[in-house]
Amino acid sequence: MSRRGRQRSPRCRPGGLSARARAMVPRLASRWPVWLFQWRAACTPGAFVQQRTWAGASRTPSWGRLRGVASISPLVRRGSSSTSSQAPEVVLTCERYPVRRLPFSTVSEEDLAAFERIVPRRVITDPEELAASNVDWLRTMRGCSKVLLKPRTSEEVSHILRYCHEKNLAVNTQGGNTGLVGGSVPVFDEIILSTALMNQVISFQDISGILVCQAGCILEELNRYVEERDFIMPLDLGAKGSCHIGGNLATNAGGLRFLRYGSLRGTVLGLEVVLADGTILNCLTSLRKDNTGYDLKQLFIGSEGTLGVITAVSILCPPKPRAVNVAFLGCPGFAEVLQTFSTCKRMLGEILSAYEFMDAECMQLVRQHLHLTSPVQESPFYVLVETSGSRMEHDDEKLSSFLEYALGSGLVTDGTLATDQRKIKMLWALRERITEALGRDGYVYKYDVSLPVDRLYDLVTDMRARLGSKAKHVVGYGHLGDGNLHLNVTAEAFSPSLLGDLEPYVYEWTAGQRGSVSAEHGVGFKKQSVLGYSKPPEALQLMQQLKALLDPQGILNPYKTLPTRA
Amino acid sequence: MSRRGRQRSPRCRPGGLSARARAMVPRLASRWPVWLFQWRAACTPGAFVQQRTWAGASRTPSWGRLRGVASISPLVRRGSSSTSSQAPEVVLTCERYPVRRLPFSTVSEEDLAAFERIVPRRVITDPEELAASNVDWLRTMRGCSKVLLKPRTSEEVSHILRYCHEKNLAVNTQGGNTGLVGGSVPVFDEIILSTALMNQVISFQDISGILVCQAGCILEELNRYVEERDFIMPLDLGAKGSCHIGGNLATNAGGLRFLRYGSLRGTVLGLEVVLADGTILNCLTSLRKDNTGYDLKQLFIGSEGTLGVITAVSILCPPKPRAVNVAFLGCPGFAEVLQTFSTCKRMLGEILSAYEFMDAECMQLVRQHLHLTSPVQESPFYVLVETSGSRMEHDDEKLSSFLEYALGSGLVTDGTLATDQRKIKMLWALRERITEALGRDGYVYKYDVSLPVDRLYDLVTDMRARLGSKAKHVVGYGHLGDGNLHLNVTAEAFSPSLLGDLEPYVYEWTAGQRGSVSAEHGVGFKKQSVLGYSKPPEALQLMQQLKALLDPQGILNPYKTLPTRA
Repeated sequence: MSRRGRQRSPRCRPGGLSARARAMVPRLASRWPVWLFQWRAACTPGAFVQQRTWAGASRTPSWGRLRGVASISPLVRRGSSSTSSQAPEVVLTCERYPVRRLPFSTVSEEDLAAFERIVPRRVITDPEELAASNVDWLRTMRGCSKVLLKPRTSEEVSHILRYCHEKNLAVNTQGGNTGLVGGSVPVFDEIILSTALMNQVISFQDISGILVCQAGCILEELNRYVEERDFIMPLDLGAKGSCHIGGNLATNAGGLRFLRYGSLRGTVLGLEVVLADGTILNCLTSLRKDNTGYDLKQLFIGSEGTLGVITAVSILCPPKPRAVNVAFLGCPGFAEVLQTFSTCKRMLGEILSAYEFMDAECMQLVRQHLHLTSPVQESPFYVLVETSGSRMEHDDEKLSSFLEYALGSGLVTDGTLATDQRKIKMLWALRERITEALGRDGYVYKYDVSLPVDRLYDLVTDMRARLGSKAKHVVGYGHLGDGNLHLNVTAEAFSPSLLGDLEPYVYEWTAGQRGSVSAEHGVGFKKQSVLGYSKPPEALQLMQQLKALLDPQGILNPYKTLPTRA
Repeated sequence: MSRRGRQRSPRCRPGGLSARARAMVPRLASRWPVWLFQWRAACTPGAFVQQRTWAGASRTPSWGRLRGVASISPLVRRGSSSTSSQAPEVVLTCERYPVRRLPFSTVSEEDLAAFERIVPRRVITDPEELAASNVDWLRTMRGCSKVLLKPRTSEEVSHILRYCHEKNLAVNTQGGNTGLVGGSVPVFDEIILSTALMNQVISFQDISGILVCQAGCILEELNRYVEERDFIMPLDLGAKGSCHIGGNLATNAGGLRFLRYGSLRGTVLGLEVVLADGTILNCLTSLRKDNTGYDLKQLFIGSEGTLGVITAVSILCPPKPRAVNVAFLGCPGFAEVLQTFSTCKRMLGEILSAYEFMDAECMQLVRQHLHLTSPVQESPFYVLVETSGSRMEHDDEKLSSFLEYALGSGLVTDGTLATDQRKIKMLWALRERITEALGRDGYVYKYDVSLPVDRLYDLVTDMRARLGSKAKHVVGYGHLGDGNLHLNVTAEAFSPSLLGDLEPYVYEWTAGQRGSVSAEHGVGFKKQSVLGYSKPPEALQLMQQLKALLDPQGILNPYKTLPTRA
């Protein structure tokens, strides 16, 4: 159902709902041509164009792409890149961090010949081609892998792992390489096992919305595929244009639709996984309910490639909502951000599909680095409210009632509403591209914590006071509806002294609130030593036992997720 | 928001939507006093009174209750019972099934003294008191345990398990004893560890709806508790009046709200579990997102007490819907049941909260044994559609449009609609009490399978033809929205010959459709040998390895879930 051409903008000044403000919650866009003008004036032309190419946008296209992987199927679109001679060299991980190489074998000519037999012409050893896959998206970690393998099938993955298991060769599985905790790149010379060519849709059930596909399918492409069939993917995130569904599952990605469609632990119905010794574990069922024994797939969701390699996925897609609206609102304080959220839940009920917030410094950064401009007046906080429903006029009524109340009660001081897809994308870009803007601001110290919502922003205020002028920016944004704060600190360059001011303080602060030191980004390389802030020793011990059971030689993604045992 | 006094009844004859039928989709109940009369005439007085006491209803109250457990806290309500001298003796499990006792120790006087020190005056050895806990709800299994322990705290559970681990004593954890696969009662003389006194709410967060409670809280009591705070439990099932939340999690219960609120794997946020050796594993977080390492709680959800004893639970409760409607409809065939479901999804969208079906034989059984009568004209199939939303008039409009379409297109030939709570409960009882009616019909062979929805009922038709007059009744009902069929066959008494006609045929049939041989009831004692129909050998082997890792002596709920290794 097309809603093109409908635009609305409730907009008011602080201090109660005037007659004018009441009129600003219109039901038909055609009454508000002035809004179009305001919108266009507010946005730099072209500024939003790249909003859906997260990785691509921050990596200059001229940096190049991995060769030979660009046209495999309609579901392939690479967001990877390589370092160019112009880009500053990233410090080797083993030089920046105190980490020792474990006694794995080194890849030999004999090994390369064996790999060539398993995946002919898909064994990459050219250093230039390898460079992109050795560096993480944030450009804060660099490994020195000498070989990248590109299997197309689970059987090929099985052969590769069986060989590596026998030869004691370490393996780093890599999807879209969009992770934020250094989980997707090698630390030393681990073999990179890329899922890029495992990009086929296996089946889609039109009645139930169950999609079965290989692990290397790109999230955005999958979403497009199921949207054509009147469904949507149950997850969405800024990196959608590059990230692989297998990587999403391996990191148990949260993202922007979590509030509405919940965790991947509920929406993923089945997995196919190759274990460390090459065993193919086929739990790729497409059933909503299946209580036949322990739910093995859960072991691999969120295990970051350390327990097995996810090769295929069965996932339940929700029906495509017929009406989607996005309101972008300015709030005078964090207390109002919280109250607006409670109001949303009460007044929007089952159609509320996202509630995101960002602070004024975030807006400043997207303006400065990406030339995006706020469509609402300057405010200490901004919230993005999305509704998704099945009947447009009902959603409009609910949203109008909510906006009228929010504006009238002073919870919200200014706002704009978008109902057509282009405008919706523009509003989303303000929130989704913060990560990118931060990356352009300097070296980024990233924290992704779960906290009780009422204390969520205190950590940002506290850090700002603690760091003073040592930091360039201290910003807070995130998925408020899920209690998930992204605290980011930027500086001109990496500094051990600033790191010392940040850590373990941030983790201790979070632990003091019984929060999680990694809400959705995972553990990867960067957080493995801080798990103890959120998990008791008994849990860490059991995790180590599971690792030892499933990967006794520790060849799968070593130095990640759990503290390394030398 | 009270909707008391509003009743509506769309009702029409087959063959298109007449003017009268169109008028039968009213928006205000007061226009339809005739409906009340129809309703009262259709239902035997008092027939629905016991609908919420599932276990109690089929167990004569005079059978008695466990002593000394009835008044611990507002959250205690026991649904347990004991066998009386009048009730026919249930055959011992070890006599009916080919199962050998494993070499566990036998409880000695010294052990009883030790238990008395751990849980003073909560060591039950009186055979009469023990009888109820030795027999399952279906009265198809009987163990011969000599002792039942009633800890109040996780520390007491820890002491008990540490002792049993040291002494090689087998333990059967028991919640409300409402399981349908023999998972909750001992097979031989395992010690029964009852969660009945672990019935305290630990905390409830009013903003987020996160409930933390002990494992022995009864589901219905928890639902009442959170309803008072404007939330609901994310699961609901017929046994709600007796089952414990810990047992729900241990069996990964599905139930009636699964369609809307999804799996417990998504809604459960944290667990506290005591491991076989007495280690307390505290993963009782109350965070929507927490990616700090492997998600250990998932191991225990659905593991039926074989990997650890769940002692406390953190669970996300959805807001209480302000408007709930239930339509009970008659369909002329199973094809129409399926089309009505697709129509529901399209026209009701986000407010659809349940879609259940039952066949004509189910209706015949609830009429015969429970004296309930259909509120709609006799039909080959009946469906129950529930909507839950935040704005009554919107839901009314959506539902009216749907009903008008369904009646007009001939998908539905008759229907009634309830909007006040009493009527809603009455309609739900028709569906929820089928299990009870079956129990009164004779010995019940129960199958709980997941199948592709379009083949779902073929299994029932096929079995009916296959069994002919050997079976008393062959019925099909279940959670169609989840692809979950309950196939039940009744006979005068247990018969190995009839069992031979049923098994492995039902499992082979299900495996042929790539279905699950246990959708939501779990494996327990009865299904352990059939896991291979739904899981590959590699998966079964990994399950065995997990069991060996977490419970090396196999003392936790032996003879259950996984094929026993002698």
